[in-house]
Amino acid sequence: MDAEEKVIRLVTSCPDQVGIVAAVSQFITEHQGWLVESNYFTDSETKQFFMRNEIKINPLSVSLNEFRHTFAKVAEKYSIQWYLRDTSQRQKVVLLASHASHCLADILHRWHSKELDCEISCVIANHENLRSMVEWHEIPFFYVPIEKSNKVSAFEEIIGIIDQHEADTIVLARFMQIIPSDMCEKYMGRMINIHHSFLPSFKGANPYQKAYERGVKLIGATSHYVTSDLDEGPIIEQDVIRVGHRHRKDDLVRLGRDVEKTVLARALRNHLEDRVLIHGHKTVVFD
Amino acid sequence: MDAEEKVIRLVTSCPDQVGIVAAVSQFITEHQGWLVESNYFTDSETKQFFMRNEIKINPLSVSLNEFRHTFAKVAEKYSIQWYLRDTSQRQKVVLLASHASHCLADILHRWHSKELDCEISCVIANHENLRSMVEWHEIPFFYVPIEKSNKVSAFEEIIGIIDQHEADTIVLARFMQIIPSDMCEKYMGRMINIHHSFLPSFKGANPYQKAYERGVKLIGATSHYVTSDLDEGPIIEQDVIRVGHRHRKDDLVRLGRDVEKTVLARALRNHLEDRVLIHGHKTVVFD
Amino acid sequence: MDAEEKVIRLVTSCPDQVGIVAAVSQFITEHQGWLVESNYFTDSETKQFFMRNEIKINPLSVSLNEFRHTFAKVAEKYSIQWYLRDTSQRQKVVLLASHASHCLADILHRWHSKELDCEISCVIANHENLRSMVEWHEIPFFYVPIEKSNKVSAFEEIIGIIDQHEADTIVLARFMQIIPSDMCEKYMGRMINIHHSFLPSFKGANPYQKAYERGVKLIGATSHYVTSDLDEGPIIEQDVIRVGHRHRKDDLVRLGRDVEKTVLARALRNHLEDRVLIHGHKTVVFD
Amino acid sequence: MDAEEKVIRLVTSCPDQVGIVAAVSQFITEHQGWLVESNYFTDSETKQFFMRNEIKINPLSVSLNEFRHTFAKVAEKYSIQWYLRDTSQRQKVVLLASHASHCLADILHRWHSKELDCEISCVIANHENLRSMVEWHEIPFFYVPIEKSNKVSAFEEIIGIIDQHEADTIVLARFMQIIPSDMCEKYMGRMINIHHSFLPSFKGANPYQKAYERGVKLIGATSHYVTSDLDEGPIIEQDVIRVGHRHRKDDLVRLGRDVEKTVLARALRNHLEDRVLIHGHKTVVFD
Repeated sequence: MDAEEKVIRLVTSCPDQVGIVAAVSQFITEHQGWLVESNYFTDSETKQFFMRNEIKINPLSVSLNEFRHTFAKVAEKYSIQWYLRDTSQRQKVVLLASHASHCLADILHRWHSKELDCEISCVIANHENLRSMVEWHEIPFFYVPIEKSNKVSAFEEIIGIIDQHEADTIVLARFMQIIPSDMCEKYMGRMINIHHSFLPSFKGANPYQKAYERGVKLIGATSHYVTSDLDEGPIIEQDVIRVGHRHRKDDLVRLGRDVEKTVLARALRNHLEDRVLIHGHKTVVFD
Repeated sequence: MDAEEKVIRLVTSCPDQVGIVAAVSQFITEHQGWLVESNYFTDSETKQFFMRNEIKINPLSVSLNEFRHTFAKVAEKYSIQWYLRDTSQRQKVVLLASHASHCLADILHRWHSKELDCEISCVIANHENLRSMVEWHEIPFFYVPIEKSNKVSAFEEIIGIIDQHEADTIVLARFMQIIPSDMCEKYMGRMINIHHSFLPSFKGANPYQKAYERGVKLIGATSHYVTSDLDEGPIIEQDVIRVGHRHRKDDLVRLGRDVEKTVLARALRNHLEDRVLIHGHKTVVFD
Repeated sequence: MDAEEKVIRLVTSCPDQVGIVAAVSQFITEHQGWLVESNYFTDSETKQFFMRNEIKINPLSVSLNEFRHTFAKVAEKYSIQWYLRDTSQRQKVVLLASHASHCLADILHRWHSKELDCEISCVIANHENLRSMVEWHEIPFFYVPIEKSNKVSAFEEIIGIIDQHEADTIVLARFMQIIPSDMCEKYMGRMINIHHSFLPSFKGANPYQKAYERGVKLIGATSHYVTSDLDEGPIIEQDVIRVGHRHRKDDLVRLGRDVEKTVLARALRNHLEDRVLIHGHKTVVFD
Repeated sequence: MDAEEKVIRLVTSCPDQVGIVAAVSQFITEHQGWLVESNYFTDSETKQFFMRNEIKINPLSVSLNEFRHTFAKVAEKYSIQWYLRDTSQRQKVVLLASHASHCLADILHRWHSKELDCEISCVIANHENLRSMVEWHEIPFFYVPIEKSNKVSAFEEIIGIIDQHEADTIVLARFMQIIPSDMCEKYMGRMINIHHSFLPSFKGANPYQKAYERGVKLIGATSHYVTSDLDEGPIIEQDVIRVGHRHRKDDLVRLGRDVEKTVLARALRNHLEDRVLIHGHKTVVFD
């Protein structure tokens, strides 16, 4: 890629109708945009049309502002909801953790080895034990203890830290706390959780214990956007691993960790690459 | 294997205690038994011990009756529940079907190509459409229509046919009817169902519709022993397949069929080989 | 879908350049085409651009011939290689088999239960044992024995039968014979094989024996287009299944069958839906 | 477990014969051993019998030395090759790495979070870049640069460090150097490698490039014991991940990392738990 080139992502959603692809691709062509990757999907039930275009443009021939300004007219004509991402601006991610280290360590390693293209602004945790690991990565660590008595103020403090860091995306890396409704609303579509079961099986607390008791032959993990409806948010990614009678609950916990961290990492990567489009309480994932 | 050799399976369950394996293997050795395969498992929670021995014996040196008779004494000493299977006696299997063909066709093909070691005594269905396929395999087909008005008599008729064929194992190959409680009791541990979801997700009717609506990223199937508690019986086998936003409900049904038939076939095979031991509402599967 | 509507598939390949998507989608819009599904891919190495459009058109406003005729001009301008499929014309498929039944039975069942949208013109086999199964499906069965001495004439006879049935697609459903080079050439891109290993591991004969000897922990199957270079044709689909030390060669054969038939079925389905585009000795699969 | 209890593992291999299980389990019973887990396997081809017993003993009633001494007599009678592991003595592991961090970071995290039951004596690497990560874990880091000109002395230095730390197990965590034959011999059955392909596909250098060029639809990783025959040692564990036409070589490298680290971790865990028994150039894995 030449130094003066830029890659942008144009992500849209609108009612399906004849001519949208033609109109949008015509627009891109007129602005000398080169399509790096295009994904389209029409939901046959709701007749909603989703599109993700990754476009290489030359900012010397067309500025991002100009692109944005002129596309707004196309969008208006077709009732398109859209956003445009300048990929040279890395997203700011805030991680929330508790005392379990596996998901956090996994994300930090992917970020540190440049597999994950984002900025990690800080880690907020309600336990102190992961501070040293986080600080080794030269990432600020905020300890916000959460007790039954201080929940309201603790979450206010957390929201304060998130907003002070201007987080684009918030990741609950086994945070293990129920997020207050208003916080769910505030970060709708930007806050990603990993639940340690194959949803909708085993919602809520102690899913591995429940899986053990039920005698399932596979256990799983689910990454989803957080909504105020516990474990009911739009699912981004899921996976499973085989277990058997010889595995005790502790084994399920151990085996499940590998699934949890992989599922969360895939979900986060797709989210950061603007591949996940929310459609009601479901997602379209252009991977 | 020499003509005069026999393979038997000794399957046991008892409270764990020092010396069981020694006692049983000593017994087998004394009867000139050759261990083809041995599997042991102790449930750490209930302290129950499970064992499956596949043994080659020479009926000239020891008759099966004698073997059985002398083992009863060992069993009594250690409070062992047990059974002994003579593998030269193939199990009699009765299949129950509705109008969907995929699980039935799959089992019939595995049987026909000698992959499945059993006798298929007959197929009972509440629709006529699969008669020709069944009869091509030279297997008797019984049509028992089930209406709201005749449920009691229909199931009596089905039980009559099963018992007349002296079925060892009953397979619900997408039978799609709720089995009366007393029939569940009667064939406890011998009646295998395939449910078209990854249990405990999406119990009951229309699991694919529910999976579609929830937006899960994997769908699955579960084979379990039938109990009077709907979709709650001991799970024998489960598996999943990846789906995505582009799959409509019909696609889930189609993709799910492949999982259903594979899961049911694996469960049935393990059951017929005496590899599945029921332990409360869970199973031990020595595969 | 209204009775007068038609679904067509426009499949194209050309050197990547600015404006193709715009030009093609503009063309489709002008002919009142409704995009049911669109898939695009640019190979970053070869700069080749691939596109598959599934389009609903109203033949009253535009005839297929007219569509074809006018698109030829667009194609010429952008050096597009293309074809257009009228989905109301089901493809004619000829199946070649030997004595193993699993892949053949699987395809026949999928076709019989309307899962596979094609016509099965006939089955050609070099053994007689599957005749009755094929004929139960009311499909013509041709027995063409192949001996060392008659290979040339046998394959001439096979080609004769294929051509007489005007086959669009030929499937080697565990045919187990090496196809002569000229026959490979003749049906290039239309003849699909299933090889019973995870290629490029274990090319050629006896892959399960080789897998057993090597002690691999997974075995697989590969579906690919047949070329004159044995087991080197473009891969369409692959999958694997876990095995272990307790599995003898016969177990690998048995477990492998399930993978073979699933992989072949997926490959065939994608091929019939024009989702597989050949790119050198690789494939683009829009699934 | 009571403070005075000990868990030991008795791992054996011998020609199959009537009475072995009886003799060994009788021996264990006589020494008041409690079988925590037992696994048996007879290779039907070589008639070799493998056994792994995990046994709880009370050192007050029987010392480990006494147990070892008396078992030697049983072993002699049945020509049993065996070893006995006292699980209270954690194995010493030395890790060899290059500049890629993912496998090393994964193992270190599993060790740090107490998932992996061993001592990590030190890390030896031919690049300096991972020093800080290793030292954060308070593990000694040895930098041994390897050039074409100094290979012999470099490997002598490495062997020196390994032996000075009395390593039980050596792990090549993407070490990327060909191990000299004599070093392979010296650590036979104790040195574990991770190869970044699904062996026997893509042996040697650049497997991801080769996989990309071949157009495979799955890529994999293989963990095996190192022998002087490159990438031909006994396979312990393998796994794969799905890829497609849209993945470039860099994507294969990225996706492959997740498989590599999981496969290596599973292999290492099973090795450390004495679940992997070498049988010729294959393995028996009691997992």
